[in-house]
Amino acid sequence: MMNVAALVDGKLIDIGEPVIFMEDRGYQFGDGVYEVTRVYNGQCFMLKSHMDRLFQSLAALNIIFSYSYEDLYNFHQMLLKESGIMEGSVYLQVTRGVAPREHAFPKKSSAQLTMSVRPVKDQSMLRKVGTKGIFVPDIRWLRCDIKSLNLLGNILAKQQAVEAGCYEAIQYRDNGIVTEGASSNFGVVKNGVIYTHPATNLILKGITRAYILTKLAPRLGISVVEQEFDRSFVLNSDETFVCGTTTEIMPIIQIDDQKIANGTVGALSKKLQIAYIKAIQEECYI
Amino acid sequence: MMNVAALVDGKLIDIGEPVIFMEDRGYQFGDGVYEVTRVYNGQCFMLKSHMDRLFQSLAALNIIFSYSYEDLYNFHQMLLKESGIMEGSVYLQVTRGVAPREHAFPKKSSAQLTMSVRPVKDQSMLRKVGTKGIFVPDIRWLRCDIKSLNLLGNILAKQQAVEAGCYEAIQYRDNGIVTEGASSNFGVVKNGVIYTHPATNLILKGITRAYILTKLAPRLGISVVEQEFDRSFVLNSDETFVCGTTTEIMPIIQIDDQKIANGTVGALSKKLQIAYIKAIQEECYI
Repeated sequence: MMNVAALVDGKLIDIGEPVIFMEDRGYQFGDGVYEVTRVYNGQCFMLKSHMDRLFQSLAALNIIFSYSYEDLYNFHQMLLKESGIMEGSVYLQVTRGVAPREHAFPKKSSAQLTMSVRPVKDQSMLRKVGTKGIFVPDIRWLRCDIKSLNLLGNILAKQQAVEAGCYEAIQYRDNGIVTEGASSNFGVVKNGVIYTHPATNLILKGITRAYILTKLAPRLGISVVEQEFDRSFVLNSDETFVCGTTTEIMPIIQIDDQKIANGTVGALSKKLQIAYIKAIQEECYI
Repeated sequence: MMNVAALVDGKLIDIGEPVIFMEDRGYQFGDGVYEVTRVYNGQCFMLKSHMDRLFQSLAALNIIFSYSYEDLYNFHQMLLKESGIMEGSVYLQVTRGVAPREHAFPKKSSAQLTMSVRPVKDQSMLRKVGTKGIFVPDIRWLRCDIKSLNLLGNILAKQQAVEAGCYEAIQYRDNGIVTEGASSNFGVVKNGVIYTHPATNLILKGITRAYILTKLAPRLGISVVEQEFDRSFVLNSDETFVCGTTTEIMPIIQIDDQKIANGTVGALSKKLQIAYIKAIQEECYI
């Protein structure tokens, strides 16, 4: 039992050994896609949704991939068994594979799959009290709907947040429209309604986001509206939160120097968190 | 003597062996930068300009890099000696190195340098007769001035060009402004003046582009104007060309279905090509 485990094309490897070729297109172009799946109690949560999105991302980039959902399910199981990790996250990426460097797709190349599992830090205390964000310009490309390895925009945004002592960077486009976090989706509560950016090319169609909108909110009788809004709408809202696979539902109680409402975790965010934990327990702890 | 040679951190390796770790940030985030230097007659052309820009790209991403220009010069020489290549190009990339996956910069990681040299195809005949381009929307991020590994936008544009039977994709932003090629800068000639997009965050500050603007054009008495222009300006111009390290100066005589002027290589493009070849000969063949 180790505290980390890794696979290349379904075979266990030592993460401390080099396994990738320098002319892998993932390495030279960021030409690939990825998924992160949360593991609770040794079980993958919503794995099918993540793998469905993986296949969508692969199709968007025309990457030919031969593994099936069943193969990927088995690889996740292998990692969990090998590592013994009960609370963690599985990272999975697929690149277009190795070819002499040239921008256009190579005629011959085989998709390269790498996976690893690591424990996750417990952030449940932070979720109870909420945390801070900053606004940063969204400088990313116009296909943020593809969960690709081109993440420099996200990295630079997140780094600004970290340097400002904040949990997350909330990005806004040139026209002032707020899109999403550097590694999370973003939601706002105003007068009992949840607002979030529509699932266009400008945001990732987050699985946690979709679960809130289509499962948790209806179950709790909360209205949801997918529409564009700007920073002043956010700063004048009742509650804000970021959400994602490892982020779960994280209340943002202050952005830049301004508190949201009274600067504490709001009632609706708490309800969503409780409902989300219940969903996790039903899928992974029974 | 091989027809390809490769280095990792200045040590010769077999390009067919895995040398990269799966948690290299270049592999998981495209968190790195690169340069391509053209080799003529076994000599690197304008190596200093390329390495200067490399250091600028590294600084823009806050990647700490310990090698000096002299080290990099020596590594280029090693590759040329090992491969025996006289006409080729050296690819060099630097990533932020290996760290457990997390968006923000890792506290500890060492920059990872990989380099390789390959022969280049002779495109001199194509340069004489010119070739075709297509217009495609520019979907890239807003820091195209950094020569980074986040190249999916460029790849998808180039792939569209290839599928349309064209040499290059000429990109334009939402507001209609033409920026540059998928792997080249773009220039237009109108009434004897060269027009090209200003060197802002929206284009790469190309070394061939700069050489044309600051050396060749003044030497030939040609005026240059760095200003924004749209597709109709391009289609109504006298000559258009793309330029770059391996592209050199490539006339584009047709875009989409429309010929530029009479659809042959223009006089001014020819003058630039001749002056550029002269510059290469003076640096590399004497």
